[in-house]
Amino acid sequence: MAEPLTDTEQTAWRTFIESSWALHTRLEDELRAATGLSMNDYHVMVVLSEAPERRLRMGELASRLVFSPSRVTYQINSMVKRGLVRKQSCPEDGRGQEAVLTDDGLAALQAAAPLHLDTVRKAFIDHVDADELEVINRVFKKVREA
Amino acid sequence: MAEPLTDTEQTAWRTFIESSWALHTRLEDELRAATGLSMNDYHVMVVLSEAPERRLRMGELASRLVFSPSRVTYQINSMVKRGLVRKQSCPEDGRGQEAVLTDDGLAALQAAAPLHLDTVRKAFIDHVDADELEVINRVFKKVREA
Repeated sequence: MAEPLTDTEQTAWRTFIESSWALHTRLEDELRAATGLSMNDYHVMVVLSEAPERRLRMGELASRLVFSPSRVTYQINSMVKRGLVRKQSCPEDGRGQEAVLTDDGLAALQAAAPLHLDTVRKAFIDHVDADELEVINRVFKKVREA
Repeated sequence: MAEPLTDTEQTAWRTFIESSWALHTRLEDELRAATGLSMNDYHVMVVLSEAPERRLRMGELASRLVFSPSRVTYQINSMVKRGLVRKQSCPEDGRGQEAVLTDDGLAALQAAAPLHLDTVRKAFIDHVDADELEVINRVFKKVREA
């Protein structure tokens, strides 16, 4: 078992976890109210929209989203039902499956993005100066790679 | 509508949101696997364990957790079923309701805490130096108050 946290670590951790949890909740609630999309839907659409031909293997998508295979399957099946994504066999080997962002999915992302970024700015970016943002970027890169 | 994010803002935001989302998922998965508790259960128990007589009005709890009234009701009812919390009328006015951490709830928190803090250290604290931690604390305090 690791050592207990120091008081300073404990305070910073509690502040971070409570605040970031509330931030996630606010982003999710505002996105859903305005567009019907969840943060997971939005995140999948952003990642696919940036991929070549708007398509990625399911395994690659899971790794990009830090999702388990069962979680990514559940998420993609839900988006297929809503017409945002379609699944198809990989062109190279005909066995694995890829998720492809549909035209409707891309349109939904383009409609949602300005609203979502408005919340992101008001709830986060507006409260962080350039030096702080650089530290945030550095720290969460290390945390992601851990 | 607010201005779009600059490239630097966009990069830092994406890194933060993807990384903190993955961190929440890891904390939730490890806590649940080891103890059967969710992060929301854990968070409620920490807040109640620190309150006088281990009790808080439902409204105060909702505000501390940044939960809507319906979300806090749902969460507390689920914990009542599992014997971790009980609900009772407020002693002062006999109308409002309070959530009280039970002895079983306190024991569950005390059993879970070392395991959870071990994950917190490995997944986050170990990757952040003292100066960075100070910036994290400052930024997320501002974000929470926003």
